[in-house]
Amino acid sequence: MDRAPTPPTGPTRVLVIGGGFAGLECARELAGDDRFEVTLIDRTNHHLFQPLLYQVATAALAAPDIARSTRQIFAGERNVTVLMDEIVSIDAAAVSATGKSGAVYQADRMLVCVGARTSWFGHDEWEKRSLGLKTLADARAVRRQVLQNLENAELTPGSAERAKLMTVAIIGGGPTGVELAGAFADLVHRSLKTDFRRIDTSTLRVILIEGSGRVLEAYDEDQSEYARRRLEKLGVEVMTGVRVSDIQGDTLHFNDGNTLESAAIIWAAGVAAHPLAATLTEPADRGGRIRPEPDLSLPGHPHVFLAGDIVSLKNEDGSPVPGVAPAAVQMGQHVARILQREADQPGRERPPFRYHDKGMMAIIGKNAAVAKTGSMRLRGFPAWLAWLFIHIAFLVGFRNKLAVLLGWAYAYIRNEPETRIIVGDRDGA
Amino acid sequence: MDRAPTPPTGPTRVLVIGGGFAGLECARELAGDDRFEVTLIDRTNHHLFQPLLYQVATAALAAPDIARSTRQIFAGERNVTVLMDEIVSIDAAAVSATGKSGAVYQADRMLVCVGARTSWFGHDEWEKRSLGLKTLADARAVRRQVLQNLENAELTPGSAERAKLMTVAIIGGGPTGVELAGAFADLVHRSLKTDFRRIDTSTLRVILIEGSGRVLEAYDEDQSEYARRRLEKLGVEVMTGVRVSDIQGDTLHFNDGNTLESAAIIWAAGVAAHPLAATLTEPADRGGRIRPEPDLSLPGHPHVFLAGDIVSLKNEDGSPVPGVAPAAVQMGQHVARILQREADQPGRERPPFRYHDKGMMAIIGKNAAVAKTGSMRLRGFPAWLAWLFIHIAFLVGFRNKLAVLLGWAYAYIRNEPETRIIVGDRDGA
Repeated sequence: MDRAPTPPTGPTRVLVIGGGFAGLECARELAGDDRFEVTLIDRTNHHLFQPLLYQVATAALAAPDIARSTRQIFAGERNVTVLMDEIVSIDAAAVSATGKSGAVYQADRMLVCVGARTSWFGHDEWEKRSLGLKTLADARAVRRQVLQNLENAELTPGSAERAKLMTVAIIGGGPTGVELAGAFADLVHRSLKTDFRRIDTSTLRVILIEGSGRVLEAYDEDQSEYARRRLEKLGVEVMTGVRVSDIQGDTLHFNDGNTLESAAIIWAAGVAAHPLAATLTEPADRGGRIRPEPDLSLPGHPHVFLAGDIVSLKNEDGSPVPGVAPAAVQMGQHVARILQREADQPGRERPPFRYHDKGMMAIIGKNAAVAKTGSMRLRGFPAWLAWLFIHIAFLVGFRNKLAVLLGWAYAYIRNEPETRIIVGDRDGA
Repeated sequence: MDRAPTPPTGPTRVLVIGGGFAGLECARELAGDDRFEVTLIDRTNHHLFQPLLYQVATAALAAPDIARSTRQIFAGERNVTVLMDEIVSIDAAAVSATGKSGAVYQADRMLVCVGARTSWFGHDEWEKRSLGLKTLADARAVRRQVLQNLENAELTPGSAERAKLMTVAIIGGGPTGVELAGAFADLVHRSLKTDFRRIDTSTLRVILIEGSGRVLEAYDEDQSEYARRRLEKLGVEVMTGVRVSDIQGDTLHFNDGNTLESAAIIWAAGVAAHPLAATLTEPADRGGRIRPEPDLSLPGHPHVFLAGDIVSLKNEDGSPVPGVAPAAVQMGQHVARILQREADQPGRERPPFRYHDKGMMAIIGKNAAVAKTGSMRLRGFPAWLAWLFIHIAFLVGFRNKLAVLLGWAYAYIRNEPETRIIVGDRDGA
């Protein structure tokens, strides 16, 4: 059990670890409420709109379009302090955390929402051979790799080497993989069509590899089938029921004995909870997620809360709460409400968290998407339009809404994404 | 003398080395003219609008706002081939060049316009201690360093360490140094004012260090004086007549024996021509620039032309042609016109290049600039407005014109630049 922290005399010190959707929402709810003194810590200086990360990877948007300075969001809120530090350990009993900087952050209440990262599920050696897609730096690396490969292909006479450079392999047929594949197909087959003189970009292969029987497994079967047909129409080769057994150099080995040469291997096959989660309590699943109490508190530590992608939770019908932005937002909100109720009436009974499923959607290239919400199923252009409006609405508060909208409108009309720039890490090459 | 290349039977093969203002302009003039087969080679995949690079460094614009895919510019021009390769040697007599990729590019005519790079003038060890500003990667590195230092200062209790983190030293009081200093002062004193809780950003020191007696030496004395006053009003400390004698770690040593501790040292004190220039002919000045014939051809090699920042040229009044974008554009145009005249009438006499001085301008923070054109001198708000319109006009053809304009309008009204994002090279931190 908790060592009971000293009852606060001044404002309740709330430490929020992680500036993703959950942390941001919780801090926003408590901002301006002077019963609380909030410290929000993140290892980056920005909040990232992850659902659009694939658009940065495929050169449709610029990095700043989908990221906003966390400080800037809370600039006017004197009771919120934003710090850029990486938390390396958490002492749940003491309600404190230690940063990479050496600083110790002591609080009265704590929300841990450090999110997920790309997981190679035990094959950490594959990390060097393939590119994940969880951070802005990841997205830029993917973009750089694919564009650079095309440049090199234009310079390369040999057909075997050129074929390898002209192959993008995407491992994982979930929403990220599907969205990436569709956007890459759009990019090379439409936007870059007239850019090169020696290579024919229409021969670039975009290959989507899914271990299970169908892409978008979380959707209905006919939606998966629709997505597959749309992707194939865009020129994507969809392989299902095939698993990667090894990655060596630029060679993918499959469990059926086949191999594939690709100079751009993108790993969208899975994520796992941040390793800090497992230091708090026993992981509940293979993805390292941990199970909170129904009120989202850490078992045995009522002053520590969990939210977002580190959390393993089930809905009342037994289905898992998905690792999507709306779920994280709702959890952040729930924790903030509990803190506010208890500030009024200490010891008040806590309501359990309930996920309100607003549905989910995945986009498949230009003009097509699938959506699933309650009993409603959408696909094609209506789903795509719905996707567009929901994402614009969701970007509210992001000042770059207008820039994103303009970028999309321009790209849609002209088939010319604007951000086809390769910036090297060191030399600007 | 030249080995005379075989007289071309098909289109004249023109090799343009460098996709800056000179190369881009020459290729644009020849695009669509099927007497020419143009190959444009650059080590990056984009044309960079260098005059606005300081705005990327100071988080006012995103990198893609000022860069455009070179391929995209020539996508519709079938007689222009764009290749991304770094030229490592040039054989002027053979009118050929060799790329880092190993490819040899053979042509009938060649334009060498590989530009300038940051020069530490013999103190190459200072390169590791200070940040240049010539490429997009440079600009991002400057931005990252200054923003990261503020984050670290917010985490750092010690006052000496904090003071060092809160000092930006800019070496060189030319236009780049002045524009950087003004923009940083704007950023920290206005935009970031309410972002931090523990540090007072108004105490951040921006120090501009100029070896000569005044900033903006190329301008009139009263304009220099005006720039100095404006900078000081913005909170910039302007040091003139002081030279850097050494940089060790985070310590600047000056020739007067004083030292300064700064965790962000920016080197804007000079550029030198790309080292390829010196392989063509004897450098004409300390900056490694080389002197062409009056028609811009390489002495002794009438089929090889020189343009842009590698060129050392004098106007009729003896003043040097400045290393600015309009001069490079005019040179690129001049070379294209010679090539077109000779395609009609081989052996026709070549006109000498004449620089048409459209004036020059430098911006000093929000609402202030100095401009000098012919006998006209502008300063203050009118100069700033002129700067704004000329730069917008100059961005024509850049599809990001609208994005830039919106970004500026927003930043101007809200004092909130949009691109305050730190993206790490590797881990997204």
